[in-house]
Amino acid sequence: MDIGIIGLGLMGGSIAYALKEKHRIFAYDTNNDSLDYALSSGVIDQICFSLPVLFKKTNVFFVCLYPSAVIQFYRDYCHQFPKGSLLIDISGVKKSLIEELTSIIDDRVDFVFTHPLAGSEKSGVENASANLFRNQNLIITPTEKNKKHNLELVASLGEEVGFDKITFLSAEEHDELIAFTSQLTHVVSLALMDCAPKKNDIVSYIGDSFRELTRIAMINEALWVDLFIRNAKFLNEKIDDFINSLNKYKLAIDSCDETALKEMMRSAKTARIAIERGLKE
Amino acid sequence: MDIGIIGLGLMGGSIAYALKEKHRIFAYDTNNDSLDYALSSGVIDQICFSLPVLFKKTNVFFVCLYPSAVIQFYRDYCHQFPKGSLLIDISGVKKSLIEELTSIIDDRVDFVFTHPLAGSEKSGVENASANLFRNQNLIITPTEKNKKHNLELVASLGEEVGFDKITFLSAEEHDELIAFTSQLTHVVSLALMDCAPKKNDIVSYIGDSFRELTRIAMINEALWVDLFIRNAKFLNEKIDDFINSLNKYKLAIDSCDETALKEMMRSAKTARIAIERGLKE
Repeated sequence: MDIGIIGLGLMGGSIAYALKEKHRIFAYDTNNDSLDYALSSGVIDQICFSLPVLFKKTNVFFVCLYPSAVIQFYRDYCHQFPKGSLLIDISGVKKSLIEELTSIIDDRVDFVFTHPLAGSEKSGVENASANLFRNQNLIITPTEKNKKHNLELVASLGEEVGFDKITFLSAEEHDELIAFTSQLTHVVSLALMDCAPKKNDIVSYIGDSFRELTRIAMINEALWVDLFIRNAKFLNEKIDDFINSLNKYKLAIDSCDETALKEMMRSAKTARIAIERGLKE
Repeated sequence: MDIGIIGLGLMGGSIAYALKEKHRIFAYDTNNDSLDYALSSGVIDQICFSLPVLFKKTNVFFVCLYPSAVIQFYRDYCHQFPKGSLLIDISGVKKSLIEELTSIIDDRVDFVFTHPLAGSEKSGVENASANLFRNQNLIITPTEKNKKHNLELVASLGEEVGFDKITFLSAEEHDELIAFTSQLTHVVSLALMDCAPKKNDIVSYIGDSFRELTRIAMINEALWVDLFIRNAKFLNEKIDDFINSLNKYKLAIDSCDETALKEMMRSAKTARIAIERGLKE
């Protein structure tokens, strides 16, 4: 199949890399250096220096842009897409995106919304990897307009890219779950760095736990500000839930309540071990 | 040198493993299975089934017990240690431990307090590794009673075990820093599991960030309850600081303040990248 990648960063590059063995990959990006790098490194098969050129090559496109950029991009180019095009979104927030796009999506295209639950603190196509999505999770949020065969094609491409579990969720379910599993974890990591002691050479006093919990604080701020603000309601609810849980620990520690602490720890441990087992299934 | 390991779990076993090439390692534990495993796997050179037997073999001991167990152990056996013994504590909290021990440490022994900043969510000597401490941090908290040559010996053994940065801190400085870098991270991980949605099969909706941030929720609860309660004051201060940082993010998200969010993210990212560079130096 001929596949177009619109936006060739870490995500677009990794999708291209993973699909290139079986498919012919055309790519468009506003950054020519990214395109040159991708072609010379074998990430893609062919560069398209303009969208009209890309639109002549295929009618299946991965749109690998930040959420707000997806909307602007679609507004600008919706009338130029080949009739019968399949557009695959991969951004990390769904409800506001789908709501804004629904009013402008015309019958020429079928826009399928997905969220690959994988990434890296390193951005750019230079960090793309054919294995980025290997054994990871993909969420697809179907809309009423989506054609069944396109949803099936997207799931099948998802399998080829390497995803292990592929799940269908409503946009609302997606945004609430992701507020917890992905966005809250980033807020947590950032907040840990925010309250880090400034006076000490902290690098001499940390272990693996601190390194792991703060890795994702090396964040792509343009992307994550967009994600946080577009999912503000759910994210702030999850921050509140999390602060409540912290306060439960604070209370138990303050009153030296060993029994309560052990019980909370055992319950957290049991739940986390269940996840570990689920990952291996 | 002949070295005694008292308490043969993950930490004692890993110290034994790392030192065994150059030294003769004797070990005592109340669990005979751990001793048998360690001998047959080459973690130690010789089993001592009782402390009096161990006390005849050497006068340098790593005391690899939980903080409260260190105190009880020393109370029970302080009069039996060979004169001139060096005891090396490796537990994760210092002030309360040193205060309680100071009144009972007699001149027969020199008790040097250290904290290896490494571990694993897997406990027991079966998970011991000669590389557990490779490139990790060791903190030594000297007391007024410590002999200079013993502090030097402990630092030198620390290097042999594989530690990269070895730092001397007061017990107070240690406990305040560790409340942040080690104990707060464990509370954070536990609290994330505490507020995880119960109804969904969450394993299908997580990425690496969630996996990394919750790995240490697979906790050894007996050890960590002891650590949390012995450092309650500093730990609860750090939880408060962290909640303040979370609330800064909440406010900026709630008011869609992109500028404030980007600034906070950039500052967190810069600080975390500085740590990453420091790790590689």
